[in-house]
Amino acid sequence: MKSCVGYAAFESSGKLSTYNFDRREPQDDDVMLEILYSGVCHSDVHWVRAEWNPSPPYPLVPGHEIVGRVAEVGAKVTKIAVGDIAAVGVQVDSCGECKCCSDQRDDPQYCTKGVFTYASPHGYPDSVESEKVTQGGYSTRIVTREKFVFSVPPALHKNLAGVAPLLCAGITTWAPLQYFAGGEAELRGKKLGVVGLGGLGHMAVKLGKALGCHVTVLSSSESKRKAAIDELGADAYLVHKDKEAMKDAQCSLDVVVDTVSADHDLEALVALLDVGGKYLVVGLPPHKLAFKNSWFVNKKRMLGGTLIGGPVMTQDLLNFCAERGVYADIELIKMDAINDAFERMLASDVKYRFVIDIASSKLE
Amino acid sequence: MKSCVGYAAFESSGKLSTYNFDRREPQDDDVMLEILYSGVCHSDVHWVRAEWNPSPPYPLVPGHEIVGRVAEVGAKVTKIAVGDIAAVGVQVDSCGECKCCSDQRDDPQYCTKGVFTYASPHGYPDSVESEKVTQGGYSTRIVTREKFVFSVPPALHKNLAGVAPLLCAGITTWAPLQYFAGGEAELRGKKLGVVGLGGLGHMAVKLGKALGCHVTVLSSSESKRKAAIDELGADAYLVHKDKEAMKDAQCSLDVVVDTVSADHDLEALVALLDVGGKYLVVGLPPHKLAFKNSWFVNKKRMLGGTLIGGPVMTQDLLNFCAERGVYADIELIKMDAINDAFERMLASDVKYRFVIDIASSKLE
Repeated sequence: MKSCVGYAAFESSGKLSTYNFDRREPQDDDVMLEILYSGVCHSDVHWVRAEWNPSPPYPLVPGHEIVGRVAEVGAKVTKIAVGDIAAVGVQVDSCGECKCCSDQRDDPQYCTKGVFTYASPHGYPDSVESEKVTQGGYSTRIVTREKFVFSVPPALHKNLAGVAPLLCAGITTWAPLQYFAGGEAELRGKKLGVVGLGGLGHMAVKLGKALGCHVTVLSSSESKRKAAIDELGADAYLVHKDKEAMKDAQCSLDVVVDTVSADHDLEALVALLDVGGKYLVVGLPPHKLAFKNSWFVNKKRMLGGTLIGGPVMTQDLLNFCAERGVYADIELIKMDAINDAFERMLASDVKYRFVIDIASSKLE
Repeated sequence: MKSCVGYAAFESSGKLSTYNFDRREPQDDDVMLEILYSGVCHSDVHWVRAEWNPSPPYPLVPGHEIVGRVAEVGAKVTKIAVGDIAAVGVQVDSCGECKCCSDQRDDPQYCTKGVFTYASPHGYPDSVESEKVTQGGYSTRIVTREKFVFSVPPALHKNLAGVAPLLCAGITTWAPLQYFAGGEAELRGKKLGVVGLGGLGHMAVKLGKALGCHVTVLSSSESKRKAAIDELGADAYLVHKDKEAMKDAQCSLDVVVDTVSADHDLEALVALLDVGGKYLVVGLPPHKLAFKNSWFVNKKRMLGGTLIGGPVMTQDLLNFCAERGVYADIELIKMDAINDAFERMLASDVKYRFVIDIASSKLE
């Protein structure tokens, strides 16, 4: 066993504090990372506060935007070597046998036996784990299968903290643009709208710009206009409560990525799409949303959703970000600031992602 | 002017009776058809009864599934000749200049100045028409632009009445299968569900079979099982109110075509789709439908809608049906039976489309 120190929630207040536990010894196809940076995702709060699952498996160590240095590799590991900078995202295992797990599909995130990075029953035989469920990246090390470990290209090494959020916020907005909107080949020169400007939305803006899109940010207020345009490089900004402006912008966009996880009205947003337009959802509002078939039928539009991306797509994203110099905009914190960071995140007081500097947090 | 006799509604009861009016003299790019058969679409009832438009332009001659013999062509007409059997569908004109009207897009049905076959302000200069709005195919002849006239291949001539519904019910279900689901190249061997078994649904079953799909009919009751399997050739039949059967069928379909125009619950229907599945809507329920993003996000699914098809796609459909021997299943009526036919159609008492035998109805 490999001893590990993390920050865990112990009950539904979700307050995190130190927790000592064991990772398995690396098996033949395993990689062990000494974690350097761990991003803070909104879903971490949902999980530790029992908002998504009424009885999460406590103690629960969240975190699924992980960058680290490879400390050990199993005998059969070929693509990752000791000393490499590598990354782990939302998923750490899958059945490896179903249609979704096939190399051709590269879709293990849809495997019904998929194992997520924390709070998920282990895919590995129980005997090699001290914990019954997976534990996440708010911790000093992680051991996981090679298939779900990604190389961080050297061009990204100068800002590894800004790389961590690519593993969830990045791939979550990248995946629908690749799968439904044809990626760079089809998106170059297209008009892309981004709804919501949090962790996911700011990545959608940056990736959209890097893919060659004209990017319009759709927001509920004027407050983020300057940051969207000056800091993130968006081309336009539209307040979706401004009915006149929204009416003027009808049918002006080719693709919209909607990152909002709160309930919201889609009518004016879908109306922004031109004929053949694509409305891509990545958020998970708690209740049903409403639409009319005519919004889609009368303009040949579609609505599609995706969940993170497969291992090949995730590595592609990291390579693309290395080539184009795309990082998340982050605020770096120490581990012991996490409970405050959760509160600030819930108040939208972060531009745009907290990342925990694990290595400097002196957990051990 | 060309004198014409049709059946028109004169007020919102929608009762149809004889109406004499004039069609324009064929212009340089016009084709005049002597109408042989005219299909009866549910939307004809909505229009004449003022259910879609609170004040439709009366007198109103419905009908947009038209097959006829070419009697005259303008000087610039090249693809259609006098004596040909030809067809006209839902659209008769468009601006010809916008992005949707470009030959590359073949999408004039989305032209914001598109002219539909009846009840639509003329695209043609007023001077050449006696009517301010277009009048449809429940009439002895029609004059329209060559672009919106299609050749009916000789292989289809043995059952022209069964061809008429291809121009709306056929192309309406064909279009999303082509545009969103990749047509025959991607659909061969795939599992297709068809929701609703009326005029559109029965075409979706027949076209799905001809495209090489395994077709499951989704219906609200057992009543159509025998007809779906024995007469239409469906491979399976599922009653969507049977919760056990629907649960067992979760994630078993690749594509669903939903032809229902009444309000309905999508949850169990979308759940039938496998990872990457496509939910294609062609009906126009009066109210909003509800969905959760998670239905799409968690399985990489999409929902898309289309409106008829462009001229090139419509001709492709007719050619495909000629090659595969696909016709609509119809009940032939005389023009004076139309008011009864509307009542029977509203009671779902037709398998699956009424077609008016115009030539035998002795309107003139």
